[in-house]
Amino acid sequence: MDLLAKRIEKDFLGEKEVPDSAYYGIQTIRATENFPITKERMHPELIRAIGIVKKAAAISNVLTNDLPEDIGLAITRAADEVIAGTLTDQFIVDPIQGGAGTSFNMNANEVIANRALEIMGRDKGDYQFISPNNHVNMSQSTNDAFPTAIKIAAQQLVNQLLETMESFVDELKAKETEFDHVIKMGRTHLQDAVPIRLGQEFSAYRSVIERDMERIGRTKEHLSEINMGATAIGTGLNANERYIETAVEHLRDISGLPLRSAENLIDSTQNTDVYTELSSSLKICMINLSKMANDLRLMASGPRAGLSEINLPARQPGSSIMPGKVNPVMAEVMNQIAFQVIGNDHTISLASEAGQFELNVMEPVLVYNLLQSLTVMNNGIEVFRKYCISGITANVEQMQDYVERSIGTITALTPYIGYEMSSKIARESFETGVPLKELCLRYNVLSADELNTILNPYQMTEMKRESVTHY
Amino acid sequence: MDLLAKRIEKDFLGEKEVPDSAYYGIQTIRATENFPITKERMHPELIRAIGIVKKAAAISNVLTNDLPEDIGLAITRAADEVIAGTLTDQFIVDPIQGGAGTSFNMNANEVIANRALEIMGRDKGDYQFISPNNHVNMSQSTNDAFPTAIKIAAQQLVNQLLETMESFVDELKAKETEFDHVIKMGRTHLQDAVPIRLGQEFSAYRSVIERDMERIGRTKEHLSEINMGATAIGTGLNANERYIETAVEHLRDISGLPLRSAENLIDSTQNTDVYTELSSSLKICMINLSKMANDLRLMASGPRAGLSEINLPARQPGSSIMPGKVNPVMAEVMNQIAFQVIGNDHTISLASEAGQFELNVMEPVLVYNLLQSLTVMNNGIEVFRKYCISGITANVEQMQDYVERSIGTITALTPYIGYEMSSKIARESFETGVPLKELCLRYNVLSADELNTILNPYQMTEMKRESVTHY
Amino acid sequence: MDLLAKRIEKDFLGEKEVPDSAYYGIQTIRATENFPITKERMHPELIRAIGIVKKAAAISNVLTNDLPEDIGLAITRAADEVIAGTLTDQFIVDPIQGGAGTSFNMNANEVIANRALEIMGRDKGDYQFISPNNHVNMSQSTNDAFPTAIKIAAQQLVNQLLETMESFVDELKAKETEFDHVIKMGRTHLQDAVPIRLGQEFSAYRSVIERDMERIGRTKEHLSEINMGATAIGTGLNANERYIETAVEHLRDISGLPLRSAENLIDSTQNTDVYTELSSSLKICMINLSKMANDLRLMASGPRAGLSEINLPARQPGSSIMPGKVNPVMAEVMNQIAFQVIGNDHTISLASEAGQFELNVMEPVLVYNLLQSLTVMNNGIEVFRKYCISGITANVEQMQDYVERSIGTITALTPYIGYEMSSKIARESFETGVPLKELCLRYNVLSADELNTILNPYQMTEMKRESVTHY
Amino acid sequence: MDLLAKRIEKDFLGEKEVPDSAYYGIQTIRATENFPITKERMHPELIRAIGIVKKAAAISNVLTNDLPEDIGLAITRAADEVIAGTLTDQFIVDPIQGGAGTSFNMNANEVIANRALEIMGRDKGDYQFISPNNHVNMSQSTNDAFPTAIKIAAQQLVNQLLETMESFVDELKAKETEFDHVIKMGRTHLQDAVPIRLGQEFSAYRSVIERDMERIGRTKEHLSEINMGATAIGTGLNANERYIETAVEHLRDISGLPLRSAENLIDSTQNTDVYTELSSSLKICMINLSKMANDLRLMASGPRAGLSEINLPARQPGSSIMPGKVNPVMAEVMNQIAFQVIGNDHTISLASEAGQFELNVMEPVLVYNLLQSLTVMNNGIEVFRKYCISGITANVEQMQDYVERSIGTITALTPYIGYEMSSKIARESFETGVPLKELCLRYNVLSADELNTILNPYQMTEMKRESVTHY
Repeated sequence: MDLLAKRIEKDFLGEKEVPDSAYYGIQTIRATENFPITKERMHPELIRAIGIVKKAAAISNVLTNDLPEDIGLAITRAADEVIAGTLTDQFIVDPIQGGAGTSFNMNANEVIANRALEIMGRDKGDYQFISPNNHVNMSQSTNDAFPTAIKIAAQQLVNQLLETMESFVDELKAKETEFDHVIKMGRTHLQDAVPIRLGQEFSAYRSVIERDMERIGRTKEHLSEINMGATAIGTGLNANERYIETAVEHLRDISGLPLRSAENLIDSTQNTDVYTELSSSLKICMINLSKMANDLRLMASGPRAGLSEINLPARQPGSSIMPGKVNPVMAEVMNQIAFQVIGNDHTISLASEAGQFELNVMEPVLVYNLLQSLTVMNNGIEVFRKYCISGITANVEQMQDYVERSIGTITALTPYIGYEMSSKIARESFETGVPLKELCLRYNVLSADELNTILNPYQMTEMKRESVTHY
Repeated sequence: MDLLAKRIEKDFLGEKEVPDSAYYGIQTIRATENFPITKERMHPELIRAIGIVKKAAAISNVLTNDLPEDIGLAITRAADEVIAGTLTDQFIVDPIQGGAGTSFNMNANEVIANRALEIMGRDKGDYQFISPNNHVNMSQSTNDAFPTAIKIAAQQLVNQLLETMESFVDELKAKETEFDHVIKMGRTHLQDAVPIRLGQEFSAYRSVIERDMERIGRTKEHLSEINMGATAIGTGLNANERYIETAVEHLRDISGLPLRSAENLIDSTQNTDVYTELSSSLKICMINLSKMANDLRLMASGPRAGLSEINLPARQPGSSIMPGKVNPVMAEVMNQIAFQVIGNDHTISLASEAGQFELNVMEPVLVYNLLQSLTVMNNGIEVFRKYCISGITANVEQMQDYVERSIGTITALTPYIGYEMSSKIARESFETGVPLKELCLRYNVLSADELNTILNPYQMTEMKRESVTHY
Repeated sequence: MDLLAKRIEKDFLGEKEVPDSAYYGIQTIRATENFPITKERMHPELIRAIGIVKKAAAISNVLTNDLPEDIGLAITRAADEVIAGTLTDQFIVDPIQGGAGTSFNMNANEVIANRALEIMGRDKGDYQFISPNNHVNMSQSTNDAFPTAIKIAAQQLVNQLLETMESFVDELKAKETEFDHVIKMGRTHLQDAVPIRLGQEFSAYRSVIERDMERIGRTKEHLSEINMGATAIGTGLNANERYIETAVEHLRDISGLPLRSAENLIDSTQNTDVYTELSSSLKICMINLSKMANDLRLMASGPRAGLSEINLPARQPGSSIMPGKVNPVMAEVMNQIAFQVIGNDHTISLASEAGQFELNVMEPVLVYNLLQSLTVMNNGIEVFRKYCISGITANVEQMQDYVERSIGTITALTPYIGYEMSSKIARESFETGVPLKELCLRYNVLSADELNTILNPYQMTEMKRESVTHY
Repeated sequence: MDLLAKRIEKDFLGEKEVPDSAYYGIQTIRATENFPITKERMHPELIRAIGIVKKAAAISNVLTNDLPEDIGLAITRAADEVIAGTLTDQFIVDPIQGGAGTSFNMNANEVIANRALEIMGRDKGDYQFISPNNHVNMSQSTNDAFPTAIKIAAQQLVNQLLETMESFVDELKAKETEFDHVIKMGRTHLQDAVPIRLGQEFSAYRSVIERDMERIGRTKEHLSEINMGATAIGTGLNANERYIETAVEHLRDISGLPLRSAENLIDSTQNTDVYTELSSSLKICMINLSKMANDLRLMASGPRAGLSEINLPARQPGSSIMPGKVNPVMAEVMNQIAFQVIGNDHTISLASEAGQFELNVMEPVLVYNLLQSLTVMNNGIEVFRKYCISGITANVEQMQDYVERSIGTITALTPYIGYEMSSKIARESFETGVPLKELCLRYNVLSADELNTILNPYQMTEMKRESVTHY
C-alpha cells in the first residue's frame, strides 16, 4: 500500500485530502486542524464505549428495519474492532475539542464506516454505500451517542476503582487487626491528647473509605440512566421507541452494565449533574485519602528528628544529594493525586455550569477530567496499597514511650478530681517535668493504687460500661 | 443592675474581668480577644443545636447518676432558653475561630452554667456549684458536642431547604403544564437545532432539581450518625455506654431527628467527609440552578434586541440611569448564590482535607460556610420561586416565528433524503434566504403534502412509534 | 416623630409604603423584598466609598452647571454624613443582590436625596425637588458609580492590609535575628535533611511575605483606574468630558487615593479582572501564611509526643475536657482564614467569568467576597502577629539534640567519600543505631579531626567560598 | 545490539535489572514501578530545561576544579543531546510522582551519566567512572536543579505565549478598526441598554488582553530568580559561592533568559508562590477569554432564532444529525481551555499550600498542571485567532435594526425630560409597541428636530464635550 496516497473526501464545507491508509475521514481531519490543544488522545475506555454504542445502534437499526442487514453486519464487525481496541490508533481527535463531542463521534462514525466498507470489499471513502452520518450514525446524534459512551466508560472505570478500593480496605483491615494492641498517644491540634490504639486509627481510615465506596458506588445508579435515542435534543427526532428499547437492551448486553432509558430524555440530554455527582464523590474520597497520607507521613517522620511512630516501606532512594535518605513517596503521590482530582472536580463543575438550553457543549473537557480522575485514582490507590500500606510497621516502643511521658492522660482523672485540679497538676507537670503520678501523690488527691488503675492507658482506649464520675 | 459592674473569673492561664451582666465567662472573653476575624456571630441554628446537645447530656448525666439532679435540672432549664433563642445574644465568639470549636462550646458551657447558677439562686461565676467544664460539659468534649450540634443544625436546615425545593418543584411542574403546547426552537451551541416545547424545557429543569432533592436528602443518612459520647478522640474516655445510649435517645427526642450513634466513633470524630458530602450535593444543585437561571435570562433577553421568548416578572427598576429598564434580577441573584455556594464548597473541601490524626481542627470555618450555603440557598430558592418562576409568561408568537424561520427543522427530512442532500438544501436556504420547503420542491425531493406532514414542528417534539428511515 | 408613620413613594412599577423615619426609599424597599439572601449588610468601607462617589459627582455636576448649586450643596452635605458613617444604618440592602449593584446605588441615592431634602427643609420623598435619579445620580450610572466605589473601598482596605503586613514582616525580622544562632534539623518530606538555623527559617517566611506585599501592593495600580463618567456602558452617555475630569479630580482629593480615569472606559466598565487580580494576590499570600502556620504548628507539636522545637504563646485553654491542654489556636485560625480567602477567590473567579457584553452583573457577590477577604486577612494577620509570632520561644536544646542524633549530616561527607559510601554508612547507622562518626572511624574513611570539622552543623548552614569536592 | 539484554544496577536499597539499551538506570526503573499514575511523560520543555541545568552545572564544576575536565566534557555533550531532544524518549518517569522531583532529576542524571559513559567509550552502568549522583548531580540537589529547570521551562513557554498573545491582540486591533463604525445595541443584564459600536466592544476585548499580557509578563521577574546552588534546603551545603555565580551565568547564557540568583536561597527553595503567581495570571487571562468567547457565541447565535449580529468562520460541520448546522467550535474550545486552566490553578494552589518546612514536595503535580496550562493556552489562543477572530464578519443591518427598534435609546432624553417622564414613555412604548419618537411627540416633550438630534445612535457612542443637562 502506498502510505503517501491520499483520497479526497468532501462535506458541505468543502473538500479535504485524507491519507488513503486512514480509516478516519474529512471531519476527523478538520477536528485535528481546529483543535491541536493538548495533543493527547481520547481515553481508551471511551473509545471502547463508543464502539459499544455504535454496535448496539447498528443492531437495533437492523431490527427495526431502518438499516439493510448487510450494512448493519459490516458496521457491527467494524464496531467490534473498535471495542477490541485494534482501531484505537485511528482515534486522533484531541480530548479538548469544541463541538460537544461531535468531532469524536464523527471520528468514530468515519472509522467504522471506512472499516465496514473495507469489510464489504469496497473502497474507503465510498460513502454512498456506507455513510458515516446516514448509516453508522443512524438514529443517533452526538448528543445521545456521546453521553451514552461517557456513562459506559465512566461506569467501567468506577467498577475497576471499586475493586481496587475493596482490596485497599482489606489491607486497612489487616493493619487494623495487626495494630490492635499498639498503644499510642492520640493527638488533636497536633498536641498530645489521650491514648488511642494504632489499630483504632486504621479502623477510622477504613471506615471513611468504606463510606467513600458507598458514595462512589451509589453514583452508578444515575450513570445507568442513558439517553440513547434522545438524538439531538431529547425529543427523539429521527429515532423511534422500538429502536430505543432495542438499543438499550443491546447496550446492556454488550457492556454488561445495568443500563436503562432515562425517564426524561430532554433532561438527560442537557444536564450533566450525573458526572458532577461522580466527580464530587471522587473528590471526597481523595480528600480522605490525602488526610490519611498526611497522617502516615507525620507518623513516619524522622527517622531521628520526627515522630518515628511507624515505618513506611523504603521504595526508592529519596535524594540525589543526601545519602541514605528515604522519603514517604507513596504517600506523597496520594496527596498529589488528591490535588489533581480536586482540581479536576473544579474544571468539571465549571463545565457543568456552562450548559445552555438543550445541551452542554463543554462535555469534552468535562469527560477528559472525569476519566483522568478515575484513572489516576485507580492507579494510585493500587500502588499505595501494594507499596505502602501493606508494608507499614510500627515502632511500638517509641509510641509506648510517648504515652508514658505524656501529660494528656490526666484527662482520666477529671471525673475523680475535677477539671480545675487536673489542670493545675497538668500545668505543673508540664512546667516542671515532674511526672503526673508523682504530683498526684504529692497533692494527695488519689492513692497510688487508684492512680495505677485509672491511668492505665489501654483502659483509656476502651468504652466503659459504668458511671465514671466520682466527686 | 450596674451595667458596668465586672466580676473576676479565672482559668489555668490566669484571670479576666467579665461584665457582671454577661452569662458568658472568661474563656468566651479570651476567644473574642483572640479571634476578631469576621466580627459576625455563630449561626442561630447552631446555637439552638448546642442547646439541644447540652440538654440531652445533662438529662443523661442525671440518669446515669453522674450529675446531681438539682444541677441537672438547672442546666436543662438554661439549655431550654438557649434552644428557645432567648440567650442568643450571649453567643459572641466569632464563627472563624482557632481551636476546633472549643471557644463556641465553652461559650455555651459558660452561658448555661451562669444561667443555671442564676436559676438556682446563686451568683454568676460561682463555678464551684455549677462548673462549665465539670457539670455543663460533663461526659462531653468539644470534639463530640460540636460535631453533634453541627449535624443537628445542618439537618434542620436541610429539612427546611427540602421543603423550599418541594414548592419550587411544584412551581416548575405548574409551568411544565402551562407551557406544554408552546412550540419553540430548541438550541444547541446557542445555534438553532430542532423544535421543542417550552413545557419540555421546564420538565428538564424539574427533573434535575428532583435529582438534586434526592442527592441532598440522601446526605441526611450520614448526618444522622453522631459521635455523642466519643468525647476527646472517639475512645469515649470519661463517658460510658449507658450515657451514650441515653444521650442519643434524648437528642432524638428533643431534636425530632432520626439521630443514631455512629458505628465507629474514632472515625466519626476525626473525619468530616459527611459535611463535604452535603456541601457537594448543594454545589451540584446550585450548578443546575445557575444553568437554569442562565437559560431564563437568555430567553428573557431583549425586550427588542434579544430572544424575547419569555417574560420574567418586573421586580424593580433595573437602572439608575436607563428609564424603564427592567432586569432579570431574581435569576441573577441565583447565579450569585451559585457562585457563593461553589466557593463555599471549595473552602469546605480545603478544611476537610486539613484534618490531622484524631481531629479536624478546621471545623469552625467549615461549618460557617456550610450553614451559610444552606441558608442562602433556602432564602434564594424561595424568592426565585415566588418572584420569578411563578410569574413567567411566554411570548408564544415570537417563539412560533423562530420555528417557522428556522432551518434546523430540515433534520426531520434526513431519514427521507439523507444527510448530504439535506445539508445541501440547508446551506442553500441559509445563504439565499429561500425557505426550506420551497427549495425541497424546487429540487423535487418530496411532495408538498409529504413536506407538510414531515415538517410539522409539534410532531417533531414527540417520540415516534414507527420506523423512520425511508430510503 | 411617629415611628410607625409611613409615606407613599412610587416608581414606574408602582407604589410602596416607606417608613417615614427612613431615609431610604421605594427602590431600597423593593430590593429588601427581592433579596433576603444573607441577611447581612454591605461592607461599611463600601458605604463610605459610595458616599465619596456621590459627593464628588455632586460637586462636579455643580461645576459643569448641570446641577443647581443649592441642590448640589445639600447633596454634598448628605454625602458627607454617609462618609462619616452616621447614615450607615440606612443601608439595608443585602450584599448578595441581583442587578449589578443598582439596589445598593439606589439605596445610596435615596438616602442622600432624602437627607438632602431634610437639610433643605423639605419633606422626605419630595423627589421633585431632589430626585435620587435625576440629581443624586446625575451623570452617573450604577455601572460607573458602583465599580468606582468598589475600587476606592478595596484600595483603602489594601492600604490597611499592607500596614498590617508591614508590622508582621517587622515581627518576622525580629524573630529572624533572635533565632539566628539556633541550630536545628532541616526537614524535607518531613524527613531529616541537613542542618539549618531557626532564624533562616524565619527569613524564608519573611521573604515570601515581602513578595506578597509587593504582589498585593502592585494591584493598586489597576485599582486606581476608575471608570467614573463611563455611565451605563462606558460610552459616557449623559456625562461629559469636563465632568469626568472634575469628578476624578475630586475623587482623588476626597479619598486621598491616586485615582485616574481608565484609558478605555468600555473595557473598564465591563471587565472585572482587576478585582480577580487583587483576589489572586490575596490568595497567594494566604497560601503562604497557611504553610507558615502549618510549619509553626508542627514545630510546636507536643508537648511530649511531638517535635517540641518551639513554643507558641498560650492564648486560651485548649480543651473543654482535657485539663491543661493548650492548642496553637492563632495558627489554626490563619489556616482557616486561608481556606476562606481561597474559597472566596473561587467565587470571585466564577463571578468574573460570568460577565456578558457591556457589564458584569455578578459584581455584588464578587465584591462581597473580595472585601471579606481583605477584612479577615487584615484582622487575622494582626492577631497572628500580636498573639502568636511575637511570643514564640525556641527549645534550643531539643533542636540541638535532634541535630546530634541525626543521620542527615552525612551529606557533608559526600564530597569527601562519595554518595555510595555515604549511603552505606547512613543506612548502617539508621539500622544499627551506631553514630555516624563512629562508623566513619570504623570504616576508616576520614580521621576524627576531619570528621569534627566537616560535621560541624553550624558550618553546614553557611555558604562556602571554596571548592568542596575532594576525591 | 541485543534488545533484550539486561544489565544489573544497584543502589543502597538493592539491585534491579535495566535494559542494556536504556540510558536510564535503576532509580528510573524504581520510579516507573512506584508511579504508574497518569502514564504520561514529563513535558518536553522541562526535559530540555533539565538538560540546560545539567550542562551549566557540569561546566561550573569543571571551572571550580571540582570535576575532572574529561568527565565534565562528556557530561556536557550528553546534556546537549538532552537539550536537543534526541534523548527525550529516555525520560520515562510519570509527571505525577512522589518525591519532589527526585525521580525526574535522577532520570536525567542517569540518562546523562550513561550517555556520557558511552561518549567516553565506557559501558553503560559503569558508574565508578561517571556517577549519576557524584558527577552529573555534583553540587546539586533535586531541590535546586528541579525548580531551576521548572523556571526555565515555564519562562520559555511564557515567552511563546506572549508572542501568541501579541498576534492575538493585533488581530483584535484589526477588528476594532474594521468594526469601528458598526452601530449596535449595547446590552447589560442581557437587556437592551444604549448604543455602542462593535469596534468599541473589540477595543474592550483588546484592552483586557493587553492587561493580561502585562500581568503574565510581569511574572517573569520572579521566575528569573533561581535557587541554583541552594542544594538540599537552601543552605548551599556541598556547593560553593564561586560555583553558584558561574552556574547562574552559564544558565543565563545557555537559556538566553535573564536568570539571576535569588536573594534568599532558603526562601527560594521552599516557597512555590512564584508558580502560583504565574498560574493566577493565566487563570485571570482565561477568565477574560472565556467571557469574550461567551460574547462571541451570543452575538453569533442563530442563524435564525438567535441574535445573529456577527458570523464566525464555519470550521466544521456542527452535527452528526442536523444537516448544515455549524457551531461556534473555536469559541467553545476557548471556554473549555478556560475551565481546564482554572481547574489547574486550583490544583496548583492546593499543591503550593502543602509545602512543609524546607521543601514543597508537591512540586511534580504543580508543574504538571502549570506547564499544561501554558501549553493549552498557547495552542488554543493561536487557533482561536487564526480560525475564529480573524474571520469574524458583522451583520451590520441586523445590528442597525436592533438599535432602531430599541427602547434603550430613551436614556439620552433624561437630561432633557427627567428620569420619571422618560420611564413613563419607555414603559408605554414597551407595552404598546408605539415607537419612542412617536410617543415623545404625542406627549409633546420635545420637537421632532430635537428628537432626531438627541436620538442619533452614533452620537450616543461618543463622549460629549459639553454640559448635557437641560431641565
